[in-house]
Amino acid sequence: LVKRQVTRLVTPGTVVEPNLLDSKQNNFLLSLYLTEDSCGLAFADISTSEFGCTQLDINGLEAEINRLNPAEIILPKSQSLNLPLHLKATISKLDGYYFEADVARERLLKHFECQNLSAYGCENLPLAVSAAGALLNYLEETQKSSLKQLERLAAYTISDYMQIDSHTLSNLEIFRSSGGNSLKGSLLGVLDQTKTAMGGRLLRKFLGQPLLRQEDIEKRLSAVDYFFEESLARASLAKALGQIADMERIANRIRQKTILPKELISLKNSLETVSAIHRQFGLMPPPRLAYFLNGLKPLPEMLDIVNEAINDDPPSTLGEGKVIRSGFNPEMDKLCSLAGDARTFLSQMEAREREQTGIKSLKLGYNRVFGYYIEVSNANLADIPQNYIRKQTLVNAERFITPELKEYENLILNAKERLLEMETGLYEQVLNQLGGFYSALLSNAAALASLDVLSAFAEVAVRNGYVRPLFHSENSLVIHRGRHPMVEQGLGYGSFAANDISLSAEDCQIIILTGPNMAGKSTYLKQTALIVLMAQIGSYVPAETAELCLTDRIFSRIGAREDLSAGQSTFMVEMVETASILNTATSRSLLILDEIGRGTSTYDGLAIAQAVVEYIHSQPSLHAKTLFATHYHELVELANYLPRVKNYNIAVSEDRGEVVFLHRIVPGGVDKSYGIHVAKLAGLPGWVIKRAYEVLTELENPAKKEPKIRNCQPQLLLPLTEQTSALAE
Amino acid sequence: LVKRQVTRLVTPGTVVEPNLLDSKQNNFLLSLYLTEDSCGLAFADISTSEFGCTQLDINGLEAEINRLNPAEIILPKSQSLNLPLHLKATISKLDGYYFEADVARERLLKHFECQNLSAYGCENLPLAVSAAGALLNYLEETQKSSLKQLERLAAYTISDYMQIDSHTLSNLEIFRSSGGNSLKGSLLGVLDQTKTAMGGRLLRKFLGQPLLRQEDIEKRLSAVDYFFEESLARASLAKALGQIADMERIANRIRQKTILPKELISLKNSLETVSAIHRQFGLMPPPRLAYFLNGLKPLPEMLDIVNEAINDDPPSTLGEGKVIRSGFNPEMDKLCSLAGDARTFLSQMEAREREQTGIKSLKLGYNRVFGYYIEVSNANLADIPQNYIRKQTLVNAERFITPELKEYENLILNAKERLLEMETGLYEQVLNQLGGFYSALLSNAAALASLDVLSAFAEVAVRNGYVRPLFHSENSLVIHRGRHPMVEQGLGYGSFAANDISLSAEDCQIIILTGPNMAGKSTYLKQTALIVLMAQIGSYVPAETAELCLTDRIFSRIGAREDLSAGQSTFMVEMVETASILNTATSRSLLILDEIGRGTSTYDGLAIAQAVVEYIHSQPSLHAKTLFATHYHELVELANYLPRVKNYNIAVSEDRGEVVFLHRIVPGGVDKSYGIHVAKLAGLPGWVIKRAYEVLTELENPAKKEPKIRNCQPQLLLPLTEQTSALAE
Repeated sequence: LVKRQVTRLVTPGTVVEPNLLDSKQNNFLLSLYLTEDSCGLAFADISTSEFGCTQLDINGLEAEINRLNPAEIILPKSQSLNLPLHLKATISKLDGYYFEADVARERLLKHFECQNLSAYGCENLPLAVSAAGALLNYLEETQKSSLKQLERLAAYTISDYMQIDSHTLSNLEIFRSSGGNSLKGSLLGVLDQTKTAMGGRLLRKFLGQPLLRQEDIEKRLSAVDYFFEESLARASLAKALGQIADMERIANRIRQKTILPKELISLKNSLETVSAIHRQFGLMPPPRLAYFLNGLKPLPEMLDIVNEAINDDPPSTLGEGKVIRSGFNPEMDKLCSLAGDARTFLSQMEAREREQTGIKSLKLGYNRVFGYYIEVSNANLADIPQNYIRKQTLVNAERFITPELKEYENLILNAKERLLEMETGLYEQVLNQLGGFYSALLSNAAALASLDVLSAFAEVAVRNGYVRPLFHSENSLVIHRGRHPMVEQGLGYGSFAANDISLSAEDCQIIILTGPNMAGKSTYLKQTALIVLMAQIGSYVPAETAELCLTDRIFSRIGAREDLSAGQSTFMVEMVETASILNTATSRSLLILDEIGRGTSTYDGLAIAQAVVEYIHSQPSLHAKTLFATHYHELVELANYLPRVKNYNIAVSEDRGEVVFLHRIVPGGVDKSYGIHVAKLAGLPGWVIKRAYEVLTELENPAKKEPKIRNCQPQLLLPLTEQTSALAE
Repeated sequence: LVKRQVTRLVTPGTVVEPNLLDSKQNNFLLSLYLTEDSCGLAFADISTSEFGCTQLDINGLEAEINRLNPAEIILPKSQSLNLPLHLKATISKLDGYYFEADVARERLLKHFECQNLSAYGCENLPLAVSAAGALLNYLEETQKSSLKQLERLAAYTISDYMQIDSHTLSNLEIFRSSGGNSLKGSLLGVLDQTKTAMGGRLLRKFLGQPLLRQEDIEKRLSAVDYFFEESLARASLAKALGQIADMERIANRIRQKTILPKELISLKNSLETVSAIHRQFGLMPPPRLAYFLNGLKPLPEMLDIVNEAINDDPPSTLGEGKVIRSGFNPEMDKLCSLAGDARTFLSQMEAREREQTGIKSLKLGYNRVFGYYIEVSNANLADIPQNYIRKQTLVNAERFITPELKEYENLILNAKERLLEMETGLYEQVLNQLGGFYSALLSNAAALASLDVLSAFAEVAVRNGYVRPLFHSENSLVIHRGRHPMVEQGLGYGSFAANDISLSAEDCQIIILTGPNMAGKSTYLKQTALIVLMAQIGSYVPAETAELCLTDRIFSRIGAREDLSAGQSTFMVEMVETASILNTATSRSLLILDEIGRGTSTYDGLAIAQAVVEYIHSQPSLHAKTLFATHYHELVELANYLPRVKNYNIAVSEDRGEVVFLHRIVPGGVDKSYGIHVAKLAGLPGWVIKRAYEVLTELENPAKKEPKIRNCQPQLLLPLTEQTSALAE
C-alpha cells in the first residue's frame, strides 16, 4: 500500500487553476469574525495575491460581501450568517481558536516576520486581525505550502471620505502649523474666512473629510463658483452671516432649558437675518446654490413667539418682571403694575411723612431683617406721631414702622415672589414652544454653515488668486503654476515662485526630486498634496490651472519623529510609516516621500530608498503617484531603467560663488547639494566651512578616491594666539 | 613730501605686541552700552581672538568689569561710567551712531557673513549686539586691517546655573516625554516622589536650574545622603509631608483675605506637622541636614490663633455661626444660643399647637415671602383659635400666623443677620492676626519644600539603585555602568543594559559612536547628559560609580525639526543649532551630537560632520567633551589622526542571519548598520527587503564599483498573477 500524502485541499475559495476561474473577476476567500455590532473581515485571492482586511459596522457587512462577491466564507463555528440569496458562496466553519486575538496576531506576525502590525495598518483593528489570522491559517492548512505570495496585507476602511492619517495631517499643517503649533500658518488658518461658529466647525469637518465622489465635490465647487463670480452677493451674505449667532448651540440650550433671555434676543436677530438671506437667495435660488439652500427655511412663527414674549433688552435673570414683554400675559402685567404702584406709593410716603411730622431728617429705609422702616434721629423723637411703632434703636436714631408701611411692604414682597414664579413659568412655556422648532433650527444652521464655508472659499479664492480645479477620468495630476497656500501667504502675494507638476499613472508615476537644501523641496511636495486635498473639499486651489483625478488617500513620510520610550528609534518610526504606506496605498493614492532612508547609514539608506522606489514603480497593485524627494543623487539613475520614473530638480544659479536658489522645478537630476553653503548661511564658523569644502573636494575627486580621508589630514589648527602673534610680528 | 598713511592706531585695548603684554593675562578691550537698568557688554582680545558679549543687569556690571579687568573701555559719547578705583582702564568715547541697534547688527552680520545672529546666541540680546557691533567697528578703525581672526562671537550669560537651551530640555525629556508629551517617561516623572505641592514646584525649579558651584551641590547631596542611609527618618518624613497643605498658597490667600475656613484647618494640621517634623529633625539637626532645616521654625502662636478661633469642621461659608469656635467671643456665643433657643421653641410649637387645637394635620412651615406660618387644611378651619391671623389661602388649606410666631421669627431673622456681620468681622480679625506670620510661614514652606525634594531624591535613589556622584577637579566624566533613568524604568529594573563612559579633555575628548539603528545610540547619548544634569541638581545618579567634573552647559543636537513657515528647512535648523553650539560651548561644556549632517546629501553631510569634529577637537577655546553619534562610518578614520578622538560602537551579535542588538558600548568602529534589518522588522514588504540587500551588495562590492546602479537593473516585478499561475501550472 502506498501511503498517499495529502498535498493540497481544494476549496471554493482556494482554487488557483486558471481554467476553473473567471479571469475578469477575483476569486475571493472571505473570513469573518462577528461581534454584536461590529465585524472583522479579511479576504484573500491566492490567485492574485490580494490580501486585505477591515473592520466595519455590522450594518455595512452585507454591502461589503456583495462588493467582494466571495467564493467561500469562513466563520468561527459558533457564529452563523444569513447570506443574501443571490450569493452562492460556500460557508466553512472553523474552530473558534484560530480567531482568538492572540493566536491570529501571532500567526500574522510570524507570516510577515515583523514585530508589530502597525506597518499593515491593523495594529488597532483587533477584529480585522482575528479574521485575517484565521484566514491565513485556513489557507495554510488547505494549501499545505508556503503562502509567500501573500506578502502584503492591506487594511482598508469603508468610507465616503479620503483617508488621511494623523502624521500626514500634521505634516501638511492642515489644522495647526508645525512651528508655532498655532492656527496661523495652517491650511485652516488660510481658509477660515467663515463668519459664523457653525461655519467654522463645518470647515474643520470638511478639512478632516475630503470627499471621494466627484458629484459631491462639484456641487460644492459650483457654489464656490457662484460666490466667486457674484462678488456683491458674496459681500452681502458675509455681512448677513456676521449677524448670525451660534444657532446650533442655541437650539440645544433651548432644549436643555438653559438658555438665557438675552440669547433669545440674539436668536431673534439671527432669525430675522435668516429671513433676509432667504429673501436674497432662497426665493429664486441660483442653480449653483440650490442644493445648499434646501435647508434654509425662515421661521416666522418662531420669530413671532420670541417677539411677542420677550422684551428687547431683557436682564439676564428672571424674577424682576423685565424678561416677559408687557402685554404677553395680563396677570403678569397686573402683578407688575401692582408692585410698581406700591413702590411709587412708598417713594411718595417719605415726603408726605416729613411734611406731616415736620421732621426734615426723617428717612424711609430698607434692610433685610426689618424690611421697610422710617428712621428718625434722636433729636426729633419728640415729634413722632402716635401710630409709629418702634422697631430698632441705633446710636443716633430710632427706626419705626407703621401698619400702612407694612401693608405696602407685604404687597411688594408678595408681588416679587409671585413675579418670579410667574415669569419662570411663562419663560418655560415660551421655551417649550420654541423647542418645537428644534429640527427646523438645526436645518437652517446647517444650511447657513454650508453657505458660510463655500462663500468663504470664494472669498479666499478671490483674495489669493485661486482657480477652480477640474476633475478628469485619467489617473493623473496636472497642475500649472501651483503654489503653497500657507507659504505664499507668509511671503506675501506674488513673491512665491509657482511651479508646475504633472504626475500620471501612465508615464510619470514617480518624480525623483533632487536639489539643494533650503531650495524648497518640502514646500513643493507639500503644496502638491495640499492642492489635491483642497480640491477634494470643494475649495479652489492656488494654481493657474489644476486638472486632477480623485485621490483616495494622501500618504506622507516627512521629517523625523522619535518615540524613545516606546523603544522605537527615529529610523524605526520612519520604516514603520514607510511600510504602512507600501502596504496600504493604491493606484489612486498620492505619496509624498521625503528623504526615505536617511536615518541609517549611507549605503543601507540608499539601498532601501532605491528598493522602495522600484517597488512603488513595479508592484502592480500599488502603482501610486509619488513625489520622492531625496539627497541620494545616486537615485537619479533609476530613471534610466524604470520607465515611469522621472527626474526633477530645483534650479540654482551660481555666480562667482554667490548661490541663488531659484525655487524653480526643472527636469533632470543634480549632483550638487549646496549643504555647505547652507551651513555657512547658518553661521557655522568659517574654519569649519573651509575645511568642509576641502573634505568634500577630496571625497568627490575620484583620483584620490582610494586613500580618501586618511590622506587629507588637516593642518591641525594653530592655536589662534600663535596665528595672531605671527601676524603681528 | 611723502604722504604717510596711517596703518594702525594703537590704543590700550588693541595692543598686540607681545613685549607690551602680560602673557598670563588677557588684554581686553571692553565695549559697554548702558540703559537705565541693563547693560550690553562686549569684549575682545585681538591677541587671543577671544570675542564675547553679554547683556546683564546694571548691578552686575561692576563685578563683570572687575572679572575682565579690561585695558580699555569704549562707551557712547553720551554715556559715562564710574569705574572702581583699582581699575586702570582707559575710557574712549565713540559716536553713539555705532551703537545703534541696526548699525551694530549689520556690522556683525557683515563680519560673520551670515543671515542672522542666532548662531551666535545673541539674536535676542539687542544691547549685547550694540556693544559688540560698536567694538568691531572700533577695532577696524584702529587696526586698519582685516579682523578675520575674530571668527567666533560667544554670547554668554552671567548666572549661577547651568545653561540648558529649550531644545535640549525637550530632547532630554526633562519635563515632558517626547512621545506622549506627558509627565510619564520624563525625568521629572522619574524623580517626582515629592509629597507636597511646594516640593513639586521646587523640583521643577531644580531641574531647570542645575547648580554650578560644587559647594552648593554637595550641600544637597549630603542631605540626600542622610535620607538615603536613614530610611526610617525618610519614611517618617514622607508620611509627615503627606499631611502638609500648600502653605505657600495658603499664606497668600490669608494675605488676600480669600482663604476659606476649611483651609485654615488644613493650615492648622500643617502647622502641627511642622512642629512634629521640627521635633524630629530640628532640635538636634543632623549635620547633613542642618543647612536645609534653618528655615523650619514651628509657629505655636499661629497654631493657637487658629485653634482658639476656628471650629474643627467649619462650613465653607460664614454666617451660620459655625466657623468661629464657641468661647472665642461671648457676644457671638450669646447670639448663637438666642437663635438656637428660638429654633427649639418653634420646633416644639407645632406639637403644642396641635395638642391645643386638636387639629392633627396642623403644620408649621416657612417660606421666603411670609416667613413662618401655621398651615391648617380646609376641613379643620372651624377649629382654629381666635388668635390665628389669616395670611394666605391655598387650594386645600389656609396659612396663619400668630403674634408669638412672628416674635420668634423676628428673633431668628435678627440673629441671623447679626451673626453674619459678627462672624465676618471676627473672621477678618483672625486673618489679620494670621497675616502677621506671612514671612515665617513662607520660610517654613521653603524649608519643607527642600526637605521634600531631597528626601524624594533619596527615595528614588534607593528604589532604583542610584549612587552619589563624586565631583573631581579634572575635566573629565567617568561613569561606570550608567543607565538611562527613564528608559530603565520603562523596561523594568534590571533589564536595562548598563554602559560605561569616559570622556576627558585630556585624552578622550570626543567619542565617535557608530552602530546600527535601534541598538541604543540615542539612549547612550542621552543617559550621559541626564546623569550630568542629575548630579548638578543634587540628585544621585543611575550608575555604579560616577566621577564628574562640573559642566557649565549641556548642548544637544538631536532629531529633526522643521520650521517651514519661518522659511527654515530641517537642515537649516540643524545647521543653525550646530553653529550655535560651536560658537558658544566652552571646554567645560558637554556636547551631545546625533547625526550631524544627515539632512543634506551624503558627501556634503560627511564633509560637514568631519569638519565639525575636527573643529571641536582642535579649536583651543572650544575643546568641549563630546559624544558624536553618526551613521557616517567613514568618520571612524578621524581617530587615526586626531589624538583625542576615540571610536566606540554598539555591539551586535549575528548568528545565522539572526541579528541581536546587545546594547553594549565597546571600543572600535563598525562598518555595518543593519538598516535593512530594521526595515524588515518594521514590516517593509519582503520584495523591498530582498531587493535592498541586492542593491547594498552591489554598492559595497568595490569590484563592480564603476557601473554601480546602472548594471544592477532589477528583474522587473512579474505581475503577481503571472507568478502564481506559473506556480500553479
